[in-house]
Amino acid sequence: MATMKDVAQRAGVGVGTVSRVINRVPGVKESTLIKVNQAIKELNYIPDEYARGLKTNSSRTIALILPSVWYPFFSEFAYYVEKRLDKEDYKLLLCNSNGIPAEEAKYIKMLKQNKIDAIIAITYSDIEQYIYSNIPFISLDRYFDKKVSYVTSDNYEGGKLAAKKLLEHGARNLAYVGSHSKYPNGTLLRRDGFRDYLEDMGIDYKEIFLQEPVNDFTPYILEMLKAHPEIDGIFCHTDSLLLKLRKILTQHGYKVPEDIQLIGFDGMNLSSDLPLGISTIAQPVEQLANGAVDLVLRKIADPSLKNEAKMYPVKYVDGNTTK
Amino acid sequence: MATMKDVAQRAGVGVGTVSRVINRVPGVKESTLIKVNQAIKELNYIPDEYARGLKTNSSRTIALILPSVWYPFFSEFAYYVEKRLDKEDYKLLLCNSNGIPAEEAKYIKMLKQNKIDAIIAITYSDIEQYIYSNIPFISLDRYFDKKVSYVTSDNYEGGKLAAKKLLEHGARNLAYVGSHSKYPNGTLLRRDGFRDYLEDMGIDYKEIFLQEPVNDFTPYILEMLKAHPEIDGIFCHTDSLLLKLRKILTQHGYKVPEDIQLIGFDGMNLSSDLPLGISTIAQPVEQLANGAVDLVLRKIADPSLKNEAKMYPVKYVDGNTTK
Repeated sequence: MATMKDVAQRAGVGVGTVSRVINRVPGVKESTLIKVNQAIKELNYIPDEYARGLKTNSSRTIALILPSVWYPFFSEFAYYVEKRLDKEDYKLLLCNSNGIPAEEAKYIKMLKQNKIDAIIAITYSDIEQYIYSNIPFISLDRYFDKKVSYVTSDNYEGGKLAAKKLLEHGARNLAYVGSHSKYPNGTLLRRDGFRDYLEDMGIDYKEIFLQEPVNDFTPYILEMLKAHPEIDGIFCHTDSLLLKLRKILTQHGYKVPEDIQLIGFDGMNLSSDLPLGISTIAQPVEQLANGAVDLVLRKIADPSLKNEAKMYPVKYVDGNTTK
Repeated sequence: MATMKDVAQRAGVGVGTVSRVINRVPGVKESTLIKVNQAIKELNYIPDEYARGLKTNSSRTIALILPSVWYPFFSEFAYYVEKRLDKEDYKLLLCNSNGIPAEEAKYIKMLKQNKIDAIIAITYSDIEQYIYSNIPFISLDRYFDKKVSYVTSDNYEGGKLAAKKLLEHGARNLAYVGSHSKYPNGTLLRRDGFRDYLEDMGIDYKEIFLQEPVNDFTPYILEMLKAHPEIDGIFCHTDSLLLKLRKILTQHGYKVPEDIQLIGFDGMNLSSDLPLGISTIAQPVEQLANGAVDLVLRKIADPSLKNEAKMYPVKYVDGNTTK
């Protein structure tokens, strides 16, 4: 295999010049650049990216920390982030935190030791540790904090849309079912939007809103339906929760959507050509992923950049859980 | 932040000794090891893993190349591989090839430049390029070639089991529906098992077996059901295909499972607590992932190791697509 020395010889320059070209150090003459790049091509020289990383203090690697790549919405996000990073000549390091803060902390320590250029994180736990890591950091759904850059869907409008669509499909007695972690995050706005839309319309509604972790929604659901048998439409905080509620309802003799209509949130697809077929408020996952990568690349280029936020619109997708 | 020099001073040894301890070079005295490790702890010294990689010629990173992490079966596999690698102090680099050989080739070239220790790949294209990369390589489902180590489910028994279960659930006129790529792979044994079981029983069956890519199975399915309206049980090559067929059948007035029963293959779960609810032959994904990591770590420890294969049993999971 060709070495840097071979390239220098062929190009008629010093090894230092070849190194500067490979490491993208500015100030190399145009004519020299052309000569060196041609020699690289002719000799089929493969520069050692790893050794280069030590010099440039960059591994051209971005870490994606998420609760679990297994969950369809996150796996779609991971897919689009990686495809875009690959185009930009960056690599993706995958970290599954299971939503456990101690796991996230362990990953952050590891990333600091490995010259990772930036972190994109879906975290519902304490984000201070990300901020103090000094690694450029982009978050999904953590809008509330000016200390981080983030991308998010319009969760608030999504909540309003869910209420509107349940009413349009003929549901008259509504409920919201969801859960929340100890730390605030953008997805809670779904509940706010739902509430505000119905309050504006002067319509009352019921609610189940539990602290995570929730092992089983069954007793809560059955209790609510016993106390309020008139309920005929439920807005579920996520698609995953919708699927669980549908199962519980079906097992207990309720028909979906005949007796109770359900609208979820996320727009999970099993793959590009395989939607779940449920009624849901869909997030634009590809846009969110590209937005996160845009922000992260700008942060890497200029770490002094002020924090930015980008919000993307959601849309209603009609499926088999509404009439 | 503490440096290697600080550690050496505190431990009363030379910097070279500290370096040998950090880089796990054998031959350091036990008492010295203890002293150095204690100094590392006391000073909260974080060794630069990246620089260490240059010395040991290892980045402690393993690449996972798969068609798309978006697809639930692959995302579950990726999840378990990463969790296990993390335990073993390895990192996971994620590569989505979309099943395109040129994409795989691009990734392999990139991995060679980045001191990646090994590759785990789910590839249904030409594997020669992996073999010639000289990077330790473990495959899923590529049993046919003695040149690679692989893990696989017992696809053949799974195919037999699918036939058996369809009959047990009362289906009498069976069909197999699947597709295949240009290159052979282990999943084709599902079809063989299905065929052999029925031939042994002296039972005839129909088949749709198309060359990939297949845009839409609709015309083929409708044609088969027109020619053979007696068909009441279909073995689908994957769960994903089952979901597509169920949609097609429902759209054209067939009831699943009342008119036609379906059994898939893979055992896709949307997350650890969210199965799809379909009838399927389930692969033991966590075992496959751990098996692949076991093989890959042994290959890294001893690249001269002979190629190995590990096969894992499948099981039938009853769901709502059989009676």
